[in-house]
Amino acid sequence: MPRFDSFGLITAVAIDRASGRLLMLAHMNAEAIARTRETGLAHFWSRSRQALWMKGETSGHVLRVMEIRVDCDQDALELVVEAAGPACHTLAQSCFYRRIAPDGSLEPVEND
Amino acid sequence: MPRFDSFGLITAVAIDRASGRLLMLAHMNAEAIARTRETGLAHFWSRSRQALWMKGETSGHVLRVMEIRVDCDQDALELVVEAAGPACHTLAQSCFYRRIAPDGSLEPVEND
Repeated sequence: MPRFDSFGLITAVAIDRASGRLLMLAHMNAEAIARTRETGLAHFWSRSRQALWMKGETSGHVLRVMEIRVDCDQDALELVVEAAGPACHTLAQSCFYRRIAPDGSLEPVEND
Repeated sequence: MPRFDSFGLITAVAIDRASGRLLMLAHMNAEAIARTRETGLAHFWSRSRQALWMKGETSGHVLRVMEIRVDCDQDALELVVEAAGPACHTLAQSCFYRRIAPDGSLEPVEND
């Protein structure tokens, strides 16, 4: 059903159900979607490692997937999740913890 | 500063500042980022049309960009926006207006 790209992947973002905060962006293949739907825990495809991975498989910071939403042209997914801990490997709540300042440098997001 | 892919693109998602709702996912090149920062209005790169476009240039449903956030590995952007109208070309508030039902079909998201 999803429209995968030429690598068999679709972009997926995880949104925290309680806060609405964007937590992370990653990629899924058909197997990652199937495993996510089977287990209720977010699985992704690592393009750098060329391997399926479960978010939190080492850290324990899993993402429980309450809903999988699909966009209008079916080439992106939104995972509505409950996070068992920080979503980012830096231990920030969200991977998007910095913003572009007016001078072009990066500065911390205020609510982090 | 952003890490563009081999096509010179970076994935960007737009989040509604007031509701926290994920509105849309698209792609930006360096020029789209520059024009967005200059004008305060979201610009993207259309991969199908191979052209720069301003969101809302024909519909008037522009996205005012209040903040541009960058993720940990600098290969994705989060635009925190105020939307002047529906974000989706279908006139849904968000492009992510359907979800995968338990049987694998698509059903409307409840809060739409």
